[in-house]
Amino acid sequence: MQNKAIFIACRKDSIKALKLARNIFDFLKSKNQLVYLEHKIAPIISEESGKDLKTINTENTKFIISIGGDGTLLNIINKLCQIKSPPILGVNFGSVGFLEESNIKSIYKDLMNILNENYFIEKHSKISAFLVKNRFEEYKLGNALNEILIISSKFSKVLHLTIKINGVFFSHCFLDGVIITTSTGSTAYNLSAGGAIISPDLDAIELTPLNNFARNGLKPIVLPINTEIEIENLRPTLNATIIIDGQRTIKNINPKAIIKIRKANCYTEFIRVSNSIQKNYINRLREKIIGSFKIPLNNPSIS
Amino acid sequence: MQNKAIFIACRKDSIKALKLARNIFDFLKSKNQLVYLEHKIAPIISEESGKDLKTINTENTKFIISIGGDGTLLNIINKLCQIKSPPILGVNFGSVGFLEESNIKSIYKDLMNILNENYFIEKHSKISAFLVKNRFEEYKLGNALNEILIISSKFSKVLHLTIKINGVFFSHCFLDGVIITTSTGSTAYNLSAGGAIISPDLDAIELTPLNNFARNGLKPIVLPINTEIEIENLRPTLNATIIIDGQRTIKNINPKAIIKIRKANCYTEFIRVSNSIQKNYINRLREKIIGSFKIPLNNPSIS
Amino acid sequence: MQNKAIFIACRKDSIKALKLARNIFDFLKSKNQLVYLEHKIAPIISEESGKDLKTINTENTKFIISIGGDGTLLNIINKLCQIKSPPILGVNFGSVGFLEESNIKSIYKDLMNILNENYFIEKHSKISAFLVKNRFEEYKLGNALNEILIISSKFSKVLHLTIKINGVFFSHCFLDGVIITTSTGSTAYNLSAGGAIISPDLDAIELTPLNNFARNGLKPIVLPINTEIEIENLRPTLNATIIIDGQRTIKNINPKAIIKIRKANCYTEFIRVSNSIQKNYINRLREKIIGSFKIPLNNPSIS
Amino acid sequence: MQNKAIFIACRKDSIKALKLARNIFDFLKSKNQLVYLEHKIAPIISEESGKDLKTINTENTKFIISIGGDGTLLNIINKLCQIKSPPILGVNFGSVGFLEESNIKSIYKDLMNILNENYFIEKHSKISAFLVKNRFEEYKLGNALNEILIISSKFSKVLHLTIKINGVFFSHCFLDGVIITTSTGSTAYNLSAGGAIISPDLDAIELTPLNNFARNGLKPIVLPINTEIEIENLRPTLNATIIIDGQRTIKNINPKAIIKIRKANCYTEFIRVSNSIQKNYINRLREKIIGSFKIPLNNPSIS
Repeated sequence: MQNKAIFIACRKDSIKALKLARNIFDFLKSKNQLVYLEHKIAPIISEESGKDLKTINTENTKFIISIGGDGTLLNIINKLCQIKSPPILGVNFGSVGFLEESNIKSIYKDLMNILNENYFIEKHSKISAFLVKNRFEEYKLGNALNEILIISSKFSKVLHLTIKINGVFFSHCFLDGVIITTSTGSTAYNLSAGGAIISPDLDAIELTPLNNFARNGLKPIVLPINTEIEIENLRPTLNATIIIDGQRTIKNINPKAIIKIRKANCYTEFIRVSNSIQKNYINRLREKIIGSFKIPLNNPSIS
Repeated sequence: MQNKAIFIACRKDSIKALKLARNIFDFLKSKNQLVYLEHKIAPIISEESGKDLKTINTENTKFIISIGGDGTLLNIINKLCQIKSPPILGVNFGSVGFLEESNIKSIYKDLMNILNENYFIEKHSKISAFLVKNRFEEYKLGNALNEILIISSKFSKVLHLTIKINGVFFSHCFLDGVIITTSTGSTAYNLSAGGAIISPDLDAIELTPLNNFARNGLKPIVLPINTEIEIENLRPTLNATIIIDGQRTIKNINPKAIIKIRKANCYTEFIRVSNSIQKNYINRLREKIIGSFKIPLNNPSIS
Repeated sequence: MQNKAIFIACRKDSIKALKLARNIFDFLKSKNQLVYLEHKIAPIISEESGKDLKTINTENTKFIISIGGDGTLLNIINKLCQIKSPPILGVNFGSVGFLEESNIKSIYKDLMNILNENYFIEKHSKISAFLVKNRFEEYKLGNALNEILIISSKFSKVLHLTIKINGVFFSHCFLDGVIITTSTGSTAYNLSAGGAIISPDLDAIELTPLNNFARNGLKPIVLPINTEIEIENLRPTLNATIIIDGQRTIKNINPKAIIKIRKANCYTEFIRVSNSIQKNYINRLREKIIGSFKIPLNNPSIS
Repeated sequence: MQNKAIFIACRKDSIKALKLARNIFDFLKSKNQLVYLEHKIAPIISEESGKDLKTINTENTKFIISIGGDGTLLNIINKLCQIKSPPILGVNFGSVGFLEESNIKSIYKDLMNILNENYFIEKHSKISAFLVKNRFEEYKLGNALNEILIISSKFSKVLHLTIKINGVFFSHCFLDGVIITTSTGSTAYNLSAGGAIISPDLDAIELTPLNNFARNGLKPIVLPINTEIEIENLRPTLNATIIIDGQRTIKNINPKAIIKIRKANCYTEFIRVSNSIQKNYINRLREKIIGSFKIPLNNPSIS
């Protein structure tokens, strides 16, 4: 992959992150790499290296470096072309940083490994949301790496939804909304809402209710990735809102509108440099999400 | 309470509810009662009987009849003067109608009981929200019968809050928001969010987290009604929104803002005609909220 | 499958179920089928047709009819030889009967379909539990179709466990116990404990905590079926108990004992006569587990 | 309270705890106090000071020192005479130690405060369980400071219960069991089961379901302390077990048996030396139960 560039994107609200971006830029240049900087941050580091994220694809770019947290990463993924998007190396500079492989300490070692072709590609399925009009016309709303959220447009008014799974009527429900998450997104909002974690080596989606009425009825359900979920907004006077990966908001989904969600025709690829992808995943899960046991184990009984 | 009026309010989006309002109006007139109609519905029933809800108080009004669901009732309560508001008889014309004592079947019998002074008054504590500026200046935001909701202004961005109880630091938390509910509101949004039900004969508040990060940390806690809850919005770039009884929305609560919640200096009074208020409460709870057991008990084993 | 028998098993505590067993026996006889009855019920129906469940295998038996609820079915499956067990047709005569395909109304039509080779076989993965001694010696404890439960031997004393996933340390936890469920068992005890439902067309296991301390820490996690879970009982003075499919109880699992759980080398096969297995599953889920919406939708507003 | 004794009880499975007991014994002796030791530990420390816990009451004892965790404390409270039991000072020597006021560091300072009459008494309501026979005869089963647990006698068989509140039918439910907790016990098993925390200055009980079928139906409900809960075991072939404070187990509660739970006619008194009881409670809650926020807030964005 010799003539292709490496593309650097970075959150703009942190001077330290931008400093790291500059150092990575210089480091890669010193290794004779062609490096581009995201449009917005180029003026601070190297004006002439600026390039629009939308023009990046597998033909002109080896990989993308994302400096920031999961939000930065999801923002980049949502702006990228969907079909031919290059693999991404996340460098954690956020508060949780669950998706990021690298961090400020390991980044130069990790980059050397990548330049020496010593890395893995981890492929993540995505899901697409469609709006159905006149029963048969589908309008694509976007792709999600993490989750698609369908919620009430008014916070304190519950939605009334009908949910079908592969065309079969599954549930009527009164609730704040529903989350349809991928395995990748299962540790994010889905977990906070009461859904189960799904291991990334299981290609699946999960449908999780958000605060259903009196906590009865619909429960989280894990389904094969090729399942089609159909959601109809039944309440005659209440619009729904769709939020894709916490990045894109589609308002004014009318009553009687039908939303369909199914596997996207594209993937997101992450660069992994760990020896064991699975060990690395379980470690991140324990350290960043589940937490370890907090009871003060100053248990003096073993004396 | 002879020279005082009876005031009728009604949801406007249901022809059947308005028809019932007209019938109740005629019925009360036939019993020689002075009857007023809420401003908005007067033109449909009796133009000259229209009166503004804001002018109603215990000096000019015996009681208020609310025709609709819990939303209609909360809307009326939020518009009423707060200190001298007359007792309310709810007539259920909504989907759940948990707070309403009467319904389309029992209303005329119930009204006769009330006119014959055969009823109870059930007093419900309310809570007030205040915004604290410059550490000591308090601005009252409003009173809630059910609950005060403090949520992120952007649906997919979690709030970072510090919570104090009676001035003592209790929790740092990352979540969608928190609910502070009264006993009265404990069966509403609080229950859907995972809070416990509080019996109305226990004068208490409950603090319930809304989708806290990874479902760890803060848990629902029930406290005496005279507890002061203090909430500080810590995230430097995210506003909070306050929603009172699902009726009033206060946006743009700035980072670093402090919100205080404590018992209000006023009550809401409901008219109850049941022989046993407690029996009636438990029946409503079972029938409208908890549900009875759904497993098809066509268990044929007892033969 | 001409010379093989059909084997009938039935719960013994219901006269009506036994009456149905007799009628099915007579019906199959009238269709010139070779029919055996489970040992325990033979004396009541046809003494000479009695046969021990343990002798049944794919070589001598076409299929097994189980008359009862899920408990009856799981009891049969746990007693059967594990490798060459014939497919099973469940006839629901219990309170929930989630696993059963047939019922008292449809059974004769269903049997005709099966005799006419008009049916599907639904294959269900099972999981095995092993006790590890001296670090390397594994003793098999049994196979589960639904779930393996590891709980404290004293109800009110919490276990202290270490959990590894494929050899990687995942969690220290203080709790009543853990459930390792298959997709098949995910709607049973796992759901009551807060685990997610897993669609049966997704070959997976789920690890679900049972009442973890202060509801913090470990959360339900869904993993590929070929995952190995390792659990160590750390509390120095408290034994664990293992319960397999609610049928077999292994007590006195010593402190420091290690339990391993992984995919079994055998399957359970169910006979399905529905046109669509998936539609049938979602219908059973809605009708028997999730429930449909209970709010009295006598909403009169659409007038 | 000059001529009365101080009574020391201690867990026996920890040499360090026993060493502390000896040091406290010597310390109190040096302050010219009359000191008794629990029967079981006397031989190790001072044989002639041994006394049976059952003989201790307010007439012969100033207060009791409990060295151990919450389990040790509950064990003592359950063995004490119920009506005239002296106040207790807990010295934490367990893993959580939520109820204990003192610890190995503060104990001598705390004892000096107590000897100088510089302390508060915190009074905790208890609840009693009764077995009803022949509809009217009540047999007392015991008192609980924390909680009364009614569970299935077979772990994997769900109970079928009918629950009444003050004589009014409230719920039919299928579940592992129910917890009836006091405010004091609300942070213990009740919290792990999904119940809300109740502040100790609110005199209340909470009824919390334990793993109800499909997580539907019955939800935690907080009620005034003077509420009577009545539970009937409906399943014709399954006994229930009652566990009081995790200390006393009553097996073989027959089907059709009725259990009643109501406020006990006695209290447990704890000695508190903190300046602010409430501040101390909220601190213990945050440090020992709720936990503080675990996300690694090495958020580098504030640069």
